[in-house]
Amino acid sequence: MTSPSPASNIVSSPIIALLTDFGAADGYPGIMKGVILGIAPDTQLVDLTHDIPPQDIATGAWVLQTAWRYFPVGAIFLCVVDPGVGSSRRPIALRLGEHTFVGPDNGLFSYLLAGAEDQQCASPLRAVTLDNQRYHLPHASATFHGRDIFAPAAAHLARGASLASLGAPLDPARLVTIAPPRPTWQGETLLAHILHIDHFGNLITDLGPALTDAAFSSPTLALQLGARTIAARAHTFADGPAGAPFALRDSSGHLAIVVRNGSAATLLNVSRGAELRVTGIRSGISG
Amino acid sequence: MTSPSPASNIVSSPIIALLTDFGAADGYPGIMKGVILGIAPDTQLVDLTHDIPPQDIATGAWVLQTAWRYFPVGAIFLCVVDPGVGSSRRPIALRLGEHTFVGPDNGLFSYLLAGAEDQQCASPLRAVTLDNQRYHLPHASATFHGRDIFAPAAAHLARGASLASLGAPLDPARLVTIAPPRPTWQGETLLAHILHIDHFGNLITDLGPALTDAAFSSPTLALQLGARTIAARAHTFADGPAGAPFALRDSSGHLAIVVRNGSAATLLNVSRGAELRVTGIRSGISG
Amino acid sequence: MTSPSPASNIVSSPIIALLTDFGAADGYPGIMKGVILGIAPDTQLVDLTHDIPPQDIATGAWVLQTAWRYFPVGAIFLCVVDPGVGSSRRPIALRLGEHTFVGPDNGLFSYLLAGAEDQQCASPLRAVTLDNQRYHLPHASATFHGRDIFAPAAAHLARGASLASLGAPLDPARLVTIAPPRPTWQGETLLAHILHIDHFGNLITDLGPALTDAAFSSPTLALQLGARTIAARAHTFADGPAGAPFALRDSSGHLAIVVRNGSAATLLNVSRGAELRVTGIRSGISG
Repeated sequence: MTSPSPASNIVSSPIIALLTDFGAADGYPGIMKGVILGIAPDTQLVDLTHDIPPQDIATGAWVLQTAWRYFPVGAIFLCVVDPGVGSSRRPIALRLGEHTFVGPDNGLFSYLLAGAEDQQCASPLRAVTLDNQRYHLPHASATFHGRDIFAPAAAHLARGASLASLGAPLDPARLVTIAPPRPTWQGETLLAHILHIDHFGNLITDLGPALTDAAFSSPTLALQLGARTIAARAHTFADGPAGAPFALRDSSGHLAIVVRNGSAATLLNVSRGAELRVTGIRSGISG
Repeated sequence: MTSPSPASNIVSSPIIALLTDFGAADGYPGIMKGVILGIAPDTQLVDLTHDIPPQDIATGAWVLQTAWRYFPVGAIFLCVVDPGVGSSRRPIALRLGEHTFVGPDNGLFSYLLAGAEDQQCASPLRAVTLDNQRYHLPHASATFHGRDIFAPAAAHLARGASLASLGAPLDPARLVTIAPPRPTWQGETLLAHILHIDHFGNLITDLGPALTDAAFSSPTLALQLGARTIAARAHTFADGPAGAPFALRDSSGHLAIVVRNGSAATLLNVSRGAELRVTGIRSGISG
Repeated sequence: MTSPSPASNIVSSPIIALLTDFGAADGYPGIMKGVILGIAPDTQLVDLTHDIPPQDIATGAWVLQTAWRYFPVGAIFLCVVDPGVGSSRRPIALRLGEHTFVGPDNGLFSYLLAGAEDQQCASPLRAVTLDNQRYHLPHASATFHGRDIFAPAAAHLARGASLASLGAPLDPARLVTIAPPRPTWQGETLLAHILHIDHFGNLITDLGPALTDAAFSSPTLALQLGARTIAARAHTFADGPAGAPFALRDSSGHLAIVVRNGSAATLLNVSRGAELRVTGIRSGISG
């Protein structure tokens, strides 16, 4: 994965980046921004996306994962893909290093939690339940916690409230996770998956940086997707063959199947979650 | 209706929130923002929505109504759903309490005007026609008043111009309104309507807070929508039945018909404006 | 063309306006904003559009052309419609007067370059290749220069870096252009084209301000589009006939074919690039 260069010691407005499945039509994201600006007026508001498919926690988790490292330290992520709003699912805030995340405890932060476990990550992960009602809007609804609980929490953090002031500490090990798909070896074949299909119709797989390195250095790589076998690969879109799908290292560091000036999803008629059989990589590599 | 907690006495950038039917593709909202920033550079710009259906004044009016109270005092709403652009319809600015609204006099502000009349609203409503050409862009077009008249007006207000400086005062009673749909009693049956269908396919009705209270406390509530009768209700999406429509108190305070993890609009094949027959509420209640 | 009134000598945040074909769903524009804010924290970020059709350089060039003059001096345009990302196409920055443009050298800036040549434009045009890697993110990818090269360049400019510091100077005459469609005379008939179809289905032609003046003052104007001949014209949408297409001066200053409260594109079943035969204008006029 390309490592970004944050670092800035200029005094600046706090950042709140929003990720939701609210769409743009109804004004729901705008309402959350109105609430934020009533509490923390000089916040720099950034739309990460409001077009996560409705209730699609897994896609929300993936998009968040590709994005958050590119924001400067101190950024707060307000994430609302929340089919369980008002139920017993917890509203939470997490802090990983110097980035903070606010949203429902439903798996939306799965990659963060997996990353904090797996990796070199020296930063402690801390979590709280947002149960301090002083930081909710009065008369919080049961159907729009984005407006009534999450936006106020993010805004109070932006204004300088401590994580601990928002509610009771939570053991991060007890947070809800959804297992992101991972490739698995079956003998010499790696069983992989289409993790995400982007706006261009690029098919992003669950082969991460290490497996993508292995794939790109293999002379015998073959990717079988449905009835189709793909062996071509290229370093840029422009270098790929015309009109035929090929493998590319996506900007997330994952292996993607793409079509130059076209949509691989349309050409191959593939949906998210589709299985991919990979051969030609030395068995046993992971990541 | 949940009442928000605005209030902030921190000195801060003025806010202009934009609501249009311009879509995102052509750059029209961005052009308005360029004009604003040329006049009032440190404005905090918020997209409320640009996806009001083309020329759909009623939907614009509803979305504005659900949102404006959540913005802090001082916020300016730049609203452009304007099929009559360049014709004799007036360009106006309204002030209700400490919120200001700029746009065409075509019904877009109907709920505000109705609210100012109906309610406990102690705040006076003031209005002006935007006829002071010093606050227009030079050579204003006949086809894009959003850019040439409304954005400059909002920006000059943000920069501190008084409402009165923008043009001649108008009697608010003479402003154009479109009557928002309201439920009416026919004997023991309340004839109601689908007021709005949101991004999730939730069907928001014209039963406001008082009627929704009555509906939720009725042991015999029945909502007839086309051939379907709906009796189920729940306080949260997660508490509702799976795969079947049920009634819910929407975040606007109105009664909505929803499907858990699904679209009621698709399941019930309903369009905005559809009629709904409600029984089981004590006859005569309104609001 | 309506001339905007920028001018503001208030000290203010630098502006970066973004134009891409990234769509809103994946968070790509948000990632670029995260990178920008890590370098130039107090930037005023404006979305011009992220809905340029994928890889459609010509539409990106047109939308940029309609918008940039409405932004105050000092504004920086970060433009990424970039099918050649990672290939030999150059990453560049241009300065025209006091507006700056960052993006790929693939024709996206064609109107700017044509305008700088054609017109009264006294401002010198300057260009550089973005080859100073100190201003790239470390380990730039081959597939997302928006994040790794263009966003950092725009941010460093916003923070005060000189154009010259970003890389080697380029002769503007050597930049890639795509010839925007222009109307041509065939005897008494002007062969014109549909340049752009906007969100409302308005058909914007390549008849610029001078030809539009001529068209509106002609008593015998006729526009032939497929089997249809259009003679009606109006100064506003509201003044046009109901249900039938008519000519209008668009807010870009170009002649457009529109339908009142409807979509000319749908009614006439026309696509971008369609040919239009214009008669009734005195032969020989151009522009």
